[in-house]
Amino acid sequence: MIDMKITFQEIIFILQDYWIKQGCAIIQPIDIEVGAATSHPMTCLYAIGKKSIAIAYVQPSRRPIDGRYANSKNRLQHYYQFQVIFKPSPFNIQEIYLKSLASLGIDLKNNDIRFVEDNWENETLGASGVGWEIWLNGMEITQFTYFQKVCGAKCEVVVVEITYGLERLSMHVQDIDNVFDLIWADSKFGRIRYGDMFYRSEIEQSKYNFQYSDVDFLLKSFKDHREQSMNLLSFGERLPVLSYEHLLKSIHYFNLLDARNIFSVHERKVYISKIYSLIKQIAKVYLDSYK
Amino acid sequence: MIDMKITFQEIIFILQDYWIKQGCAIIQPIDIEVGAATSHPMTCLYAIGKKSIAIAYVQPSRRPIDGRYANSKNRLQHYYQFQVIFKPSPFNIQEIYLKSLASLGIDLKNNDIRFVEDNWENETLGASGVGWEIWLNGMEITQFTYFQKVCGAKCEVVVVEITYGLERLSMHVQDIDNVFDLIWADSKFGRIRYGDMFYRSEIEQSKYNFQYSDVDFLLKSFKDHREQSMNLLSFGERLPVLSYEHLLKSIHYFNLLDARNIFSVHERKVYISKIYSLIKQIAKVYLDSYK
Repeated sequence: MIDMKITFQEIIFILQDYWIKQGCAIIQPIDIEVGAATSHPMTCLYAIGKKSIAIAYVQPSRRPIDGRYANSKNRLQHYYQFQVIFKPSPFNIQEIYLKSLASLGIDLKNNDIRFVEDNWENETLGASGVGWEIWLNGMEITQFTYFQKVCGAKCEVVVVEITYGLERLSMHVQDIDNVFDLIWADSKFGRIRYGDMFYRSEIEQSKYNFQYSDVDFLLKSFKDHREQSMNLLSFGERLPVLSYEHLLKSIHYFNLLDARNIFSVHERKVYISKIYSLIKQIAKVYLDSYK
Repeated sequence: MIDMKITFQEIIFILQDYWIKQGCAIIQPIDIEVGAATSHPMTCLYAIGKKSIAIAYVQPSRRPIDGRYANSKNRLQHYYQFQVIFKPSPFNIQEIYLKSLASLGIDLKNNDIRFVEDNWENETLGASGVGWEIWLNGMEITQFTYFQKVCGAKCEVVVVEITYGLERLSMHVQDIDNVFDLIWADSKFGRIRYGDMFYRSEIEQSKYNFQYSDVDFLLKSFKDHREQSMNLLSFGERLPVLSYEHLLKSIHYFNLLDARNIFSVHERKVYISKIYSLIKQIAKVYLDSYK
């Protein structure tokens, strides 16, 4: 007899359902490689300005440097984040968040849940804020942040971002200690585990990230996309959304270069400051055009 | 009083729920710009070979040439497909499909539902099959295909692909005649329409696709990604999944070039045949490595 566990896909449904009840719209991921859900234009660009938002979504996320050739039990270079964004933040958002864990069957009294202060920063997105890592029995399952700055601009209204690490959260819910053993789905055709879909590709992607990516190509692509991004701000008609998409691509090339460990400390700073100064310009043009 | 309609996000949930009951796992979209859900590696690469599959997912899709500066009521250059893939195909899949429409409250008796023969082909993916466009009161809402070839290779087992056009389906369900008026979500914070999220970006993306994209950059990027894709097949260790991802990127650049209308009929064929011959090689290496 198969033991019935809440599957990975069901955990997503339960979170979606829970956040809909709190007033969120469920949107779809951005179809561009990003390091984190924060990069989705509907977080990063919507967070600036005064318009209210309440959205939630799953975002495939890639951090090339975190590849471990599928040898780590809980570290991946491709994974899924579940993102919740409110502007303005509900006053009791921490309590609302905790109840989302309860909705997954997590016993809030008999588990060790800690809000560990962690003032978060994403240098390339020019974003920072005050917040907490949320630890469940010693494993980080969520990043909880009140944005102070996004795209290098001060937030005019308090924005709260809640980012669940879906794999780690699911490992707790399913009581499984290796991410590749996570149960993604159970059906009449059998059980699908996380590793069935991603074990081989984690090995292949790790080989690419650390050994086979073409550094000259990456350097050129970073430069080219950054130039495209800048050009799209300087035509008579400015195209900030397109400019932002090219910026996201150049950030991904930066992340791939970073995984090849080619930067000196100084060079790395120069790259980050190039990205940062560009995102500030994009945000300005976006606010002018889309307010 | 607000009239209660099934929202766009609920239509996705209902379809997911329905296909889970038929045995599908719900997976996440690929985070790379693609022209159609077929390009997701879990359709395109999984369809070859003998392994069974039963999956469904939403895929953001971009067809630059279909941009209409938000002036069309039902044509967009960015939209969402809901994709279902079975291998082998259930014998009564057409009946199962029709019941999925009923699950959305569509009355199968009092609407004009037609299976219009349409032997589908996607030249760049080397895919073709026999199938139908499914018309609901004169509007195409689904493409239904039995694959005969994918990646230039004959399918060994019958694969069925069902691709719903989510916007058009929702326009019927909500009885709305302009895509931008679609109700995406209703919440205590108010109603979000499709146009709130995508009206401005359709205009901006159309400007880019037809006027401002940098043709030299696109030509170079097509060439570069194609080269990267080929190189990743020819190292000692072959990386077919990475090679496929670079191919997807070069296909997107081809689609952007196509929107600029720069190809002669002959040149266009040359480009397509370059893509086609590469995808055949990728499929071979993939089958060798991942069987």
